[in-house]
Amino acid sequence: MNHSLDHLRADLASFAADRNWGQFHSPKNLASALIVETAELLEHFQWLTEEESRRLSEAKREAVTQEIGDVLLYLIQLSASLEIDPVAAARAKLAMNALKYPVDKARGHSRKYNET
Amino acid sequence: MNHSLDHLRADLASFAADRNWGQFHSPKNLASALIVETAELLEHFQWLTEEESRRLSEAKREAVTQEIGDVLLYLIQLSASLEIDPVAAARAKLAMNALKYPVDKARGHSRKYNET
Amino acid sequence: MNHSLDHLRADLASFAADRNWGQFHSPKNLASALIVETAELLEHFQWLTEEESRRLSEAKREAVTQEIGDVLLYLIQLSASLEIDPVAAARAKLAMNALKYPVDKARGHSRKYNET
Amino acid sequence: MNHSLDHLRADLASFAADRNWGQFHSPKNLASALIVETAELLEHFQWLTEEESRRLSEAKREAVTQEIGDVLLYLIQLSASLEIDPVAAARAKLAMNALKYPVDKARGHSRKYNET
Repeated sequence: MNHSLDHLRADLASFAADRNWGQFHSPKNLASALIVETAELLEHFQWLTEEESRRLSEAKREAVTQEIGDVLLYLIQLSASLEIDPVAAARAKLAMNALKYPVDKARGHSRKYNET
Repeated sequence: MNHSLDHLRADLASFAADRNWGQFHSPKNLASALIVETAELLEHFQWLTEEESRRLSEAKREAVTQEIGDVLLYLIQLSASLEIDPVAAARAKLAMNALKYPVDKARGHSRKYNET
Repeated sequence: MNHSLDHLRADLASFAADRNWGQFHSPKNLASALIVETAELLEHFQWLTEEESRRLSEAKREAVTQEIGDVLLYLIQLSASLEIDPVAAARAKLAMNALKYPVDKARGHSRKYNET
Repeated sequence: MNHSLDHLRADLASFAADRNWGQFHSPKNLASALIVETAELLEHFQWLTEEESRRLSEAKREAVTQEIGDVLLYLIQLSASLEIDPVAAARAKLAMNALKYPVDKARGHSRKYNET
């Protein structure tokens, strides 16, 4: 894992250990907490048009920033609980996507996106 | 943003630009895609006991790794679309949580977790 | 609960009992399964514009119908596991919303929806 | 659709029309709202053990009841926006599941549930 995420992971481990919260942090529970935070993030966008979502007010942008923070915190904790490196996982997935969606095919017709 | 996530963000931007996918990547849509991937992650845990979720089979752990990769990829793209630094956001949220849940209070009774 | 949902609930109870699945159907697990199905429903809309989402192709409409069926099945099972009547719950919530969003105030400015 | 859900659907349509909210209620947006409510429901269970989730306190049960109401309200609205009958959809899905998971096979080994 890269430096900054490493630090966050270590700090999160101390944070939970100091509070004796490890007992609650099974992967199953952390995966639930992760989706709950992701929904709080989505909630800020649910009634906006796509265009509005591209130009948030300062207040909304601040609220969204906090939710993004929460999502990353739980993603790090879930990954740590399973000893999975999330950055390496993302890197591998991106490489797989490059094979799955070759540039020349994806450009012409964005079938992935256009199925109505 | 730290080095590795910076790299991923840049690679993701190229990936989408090469395929002309930026038009679909409004924050609203990316927030939806993020929760859909998070649900695919949760799906692997939904019928497991907490104990089982702590000791995944190799096949399941591999599938979970891929989903974690997907979640991080969309979290980076959503953050980039709003010019938000997710690591700084997580760092700030952790500092807020330290104020909200002081060690001495949190240790004795884990009210956050124990409300049945 | 009304007649048709009552029937579904009874049939679902038999279905699970016949397969000895009650052991997996704790409210915690059913709430996870419910959100996973809801995400599969959302997935069909995530890259569509709002306008496109109003005129689905026949194939997509059929797939969405199946996901709506799944969501309702788990909502009924979760409700049954807690002996909660979902229709009465919805009826009560609608009455609360009528108090929370009076017509004359809600019409003029849809603040609930317009916060960018 | 059965009688009670029919009533709810009609009342919801009036409720939205009175407030001029139809403009926000595209299927895409309603599917997002649905998962956000489902997450609020899941949030009540995320730190509980499965056993605890089977015996909720009165206060938590009341909160869960309200969230179940919200989920059903949005499921009805989403279904109505697409002219899909959710009860018929659930009935059809249950029939498909009966074919997919025959009793004699499902009883012996609950593979659907036991993949760790």
